Amino acid sequence: MYYGQEQRWADEAELLKPVLHHRMVQAHAMVQPEESASAWQNWCIRRIGSPADFYGQELGQCTEVIFDFGEYCVGTPVLQFAFSGRNDSPMRIEYKLAETPLELAFDFEQYQTPPGWLSRAWLQNGVVVLDENTETVRFPRRYAFRYMKLKMYLSPYAKTRMLSAACDCTTSADWSALCEPAEKGDALDQEIRRIGVKTLACCMQDFYEDGPKRDRRLWLGDLRLQMMADAHVFRNFRLAKRCLLLFAAAATPEEGRVAGSLYPAKPLPLADQDLFDYTVLFGDILLDYVTHSGDTALGLDLLPVAVRQSRLALQEVKDDCFCDFKRHWLFIDWKEGLEHECAEHGVVLYSLIRTLALARKLGREELVSDFPETIERLKQAGIRKWFDREKGFFVDNGQISWAAQIWAAYGEMLPPEETRQMLLRVMKDASALRPGGPYLHNQMVIVLEKYGLHEEARQLIRDYWGKMVELGADTFWEIFDPAQPLLSPYGQAVLNSHCHAWSTPVSLQI
Amino acid sequence: MYYGQEQRWADEAELLKPVLHHRMVQAHAMVQPEESASAWQNWCIRRIGSPADFYGQELGQCTEVIFDFGEYCVGTPVLQFAFSGRNDSPMRIEYKLAETPLELAFDFEQYQTPPGWLSRAWLQNGVVVLDENTETVRFPRRYAFRYMKLKMYLSPYAKTRMLSAACDCTTSADWSALCEPAEKGDALDQEIRRIGVKTLACCMQDFYEDGPKRDRRLWLGDLRLQMMADAHVFRNFRLAKRCLLLFAAAATPEEGRVAGSLYPAKPLPLADQDLFDYTVLFGDILLDYVTHSGDTALGLDLLPVAVRQSRLALQEVKDDCFCDFKRHWLFIDWKEGLEHECAEHGVVLYSLIRTLALARKLGREELVSDFPETIERLKQAGIRKWFDREKGFFVDNGQISWAAQIWAAYGEMLPPEETRQMLLRVMKDASALRPGGPYLHNQMVIVLEKYGLHEEARQLIRDYWGKMVELGADTFWEIFDPAQPLLSPYGQAVLNSHCHAWSTPVSLQI
Repeated sequence: MYYGQEQRWADEAELLKPVLHHRMVQAHAMVQPEESASAWQNWCIRRIGSPADFYGQELGQCTEVIFDFGEYCVGTPVLQFAFSGRNDSPMRIEYKLAETPLELAFDFEQYQTPPGWLSRAWLQNGVVVLDENTETVRFPRRYAFRYMKLKMYLSPYAKTRMLSAACDCTTSADWSALCEPAEKGDALDQEIRRIGVKTLACCMQDFYEDGPKRDRRLWLGDLRLQMMADAHVFRNFRLAKRCLLLFAAAATPEEGRVAGSLYPAKPLPLADQDLFDYTVLFGDILLDYVTHSGDTALGLDLLPVAVRQSRLALQEVKDDCFCDFKRHWLFIDWKEGLEHECAEHGVVLYSLIRTLALARKLGREELVSDFPETIERLKQAGIRKWFDREKGFFVDNGQISWAAQIWAAYGEMLPPEETRQMLLRVMKDASALRPGGPYLHNQMVIVLEKYGLHEEARQLIRDYWGKMVELGADTFWEIFDPAQPLLSPYGQAVLNSHCHAWSTPVSLQI
Repeated sequence: MYYGQEQRWADEAELLKPVLHHRMVQAHAMVQPEESASAWQNWCIRRIGSPADFYGQELGQCTEVIFDFGEYCVGTPVLQFAFSGRNDSPMRIEYKLAETPLELAFDFEQYQTPPGWLSRAWLQNGVVVLDENTETVRFPRRYAFRYMKLKMYLSPYAKTRMLSAACDCTTSADWSALCEPAEKGDALDQEIRRIGVKTLACCMQDFYEDGPKRDRRLWLGDLRLQMMADAHVFRNFRLAKRCLLLFAAAATPEEGRVAGSLYPAKPLPLADQDLFDYTVLFGDILLDYVTHSGDTALGLDLLPVAVRQSRLALQEVKDDCFCDFKRHWLFIDWKEGLEHECAEHGVVLYSLIRTLALARKLGREELVSDFPETIERLKQAGIRKWFDREKGFFVDNGQISWAAQIWAAYGEMLPPEETRQMLLRVMKDASALRPGGPYLHNQMVIVLEKYGLHEEARQLIRDYWGKMVELGADTFWEIFDPAQPLLSPYGQAVLNSHCHAWSTPVSLQI
């Protein structure tokens, strides 16, 4: 083991495993999905009745019903039945749970790999078969959904009535601790905040999950955004501490590299995905944590991990510039054709800047005494390699992207005023490659705030997240391009997550 | 409560609940169903490989496989897996279990009510979704099958291999106590006995079940046949006693009528189906039990129940003949157009004859001192009403059926030699209405044996059950008419049970 502390860190993380808060959410309406050219993804929901009317009725041998829960639910569905006779055959309950109208309408049997490439196992349907009349049926797994479709095969002799359809929702967010926003804003700001807070809470389970429907793991880059938002919302620093410890505990034994993502497990968490631009920001995340929580003890405990990640970042530098040696996954954004090197150069610089700041804050600057000089060298080299003075943009292999400008701004490669102008300009430049989704939009929000462009950050949130609100989002979506409603990096939009860690707008203090 | 002893009987039955014997059966071959005009129900099974070859392989993102278990299994399927990586998506296992090639090939989604009228919930398929790599997957319910079809959606990262597909088979039959047959017979006799014993064992669970796939309840008429067979096979008199106590405990509170079928439950078993020709034979069954087990204590305890059923039978008699007042279900056989009254008259007579014999055997003849005279009166009235001397048959509403002759023979309405001739004649008479299935065939076997026609009983078994053997039966089928392979009283043959209580040939002492 690289640090020798991994097992202790894992054990401490285990002790911090939260007790989840439970809340029963009842089905809200009976509905049908309907095709509609004017609706997002071409499907809308039509209300056809009230669950209260349905509950009293004796159900037929085969009964189909679709419930709208009125809000996004993460938890275990629970159905309640009453019987006035003995069943002479099992109860068979086929269920489907969907985040969106499209998913509700889509026949999961039609899902194919390819074009999809994520497992069909994420699609939320299943079957429960019970040999006895069973008054309370808890589904065998946690689900994330707004819509529940049931097809129930029942014994006519049992004279079955449904008493309720509910979801035993869970979260580690404490709603009673919810902070007031610094600015109240107008109705749209408030709605974005409401949905953002809901997104955050739904992803807060045993750890900060990525998506409660799909990809229920802990990703470092997403954790960074979740912690940033949560510092002004639920302030669950226990959960943040647990997650940081899990990453430290899952570092590779040979070189102490933290993972891009992980799954809690015993005796040690299981590392997954060597995602470069996530892993090298461990120091940044730890600094955020120490700043907001005041917990310098954890900062000191994990400082060696942070320093190590920044030093590992430097292994990807050649002639003072980041170079893709094809040995790590370079992400930055889900965006076809995106050039990565300039953006990753900014990531490396930011990693050094933030780890240096962390070490200073903790009084351990001697560990990184070489960083200031390295930072200066990398800045100059980066400007030389990528900055086009004429265009006023960082240009990567001929490409002008939001991504490159954002990470150049993170890396403080230009003086502040120049950076501000560059950020404002790129957002207006129709030819610049725009973000593929919420993750990089959030990065822009962060750098706009970093450079004091608060109103512009607010406007970006209103434009981008506001559009999701307009389209009926219950929680914010993993993938969102207003011009491409069926866009999916996974080949089929039904696999997209519609409540997603990185989609929580970081500026919830509005 | 009619008898006042119902709760004690229920408690005694509960104490007799058996500890089940377990046996792991491994998948035997990898197969495919194939259409074949020459096969029973037009489907046969083609062997395509050995499970051993499959087990080693790393499974794809979607893997389909069909296993033939080589024998009929009743129990909980158990799959074992090994993984060499962490899953990044759930394991989704869609399974289908089938008794027959037709059922394996039939798309359960196509099952409709009507034409089917039993619940689709009996069709054995389901889904298991597991969020973690799970080495041992036990299905959530007991199943009955020979073929197992799996469609598995797996995480490619998990690098999953299957180690085994097995069934944790259960039975309350003790195979180590299996009796030798009185006559060994030839190869066909031995094969019929082997399959009959297997059928019996598969139906012996917590009680003598009707069908381990469909209709998992206790039927009195089927129990009668099972106990009759088992007296020469496993001799599980504990199980027989438990079942008799359950019927006594479930008698109606008002008039002490036992049920045609029941489900064990607490505090009292739940009665179902007022099937006349089953319920009135309680005394006959109890007499069989006392005779084979020597347990006169239970005989004395339940004698009042037996006497009461025979007296209730007499309530359906008018002018000394059975009359259908349309207040009970008259079964006799699954056979379109069958006339019931003459056969039920024989049932009533047999009920009186056997309860009288039971009371005599237990030294309590005074309880039924009126029976001999009633029996005589009913015999004469039955002959007058239904016996056609010219034709030499009992004729019911113009119909000559096996059913009427069988139950007239049970009721001893004619002298023995006349009865023998009548039975032999009806079996040769092509115009006589034949049995619809194994239940009435078994009744013929019983009366042939009762009248000393052992070779003819043996021949009937060889002809009828032998045909099932020829067609590849693993266990004997609930419904079987060689001329109508897709015959089903339930509207669709896939709902038929292919391991069924009443299909155990009663003469397993061959």
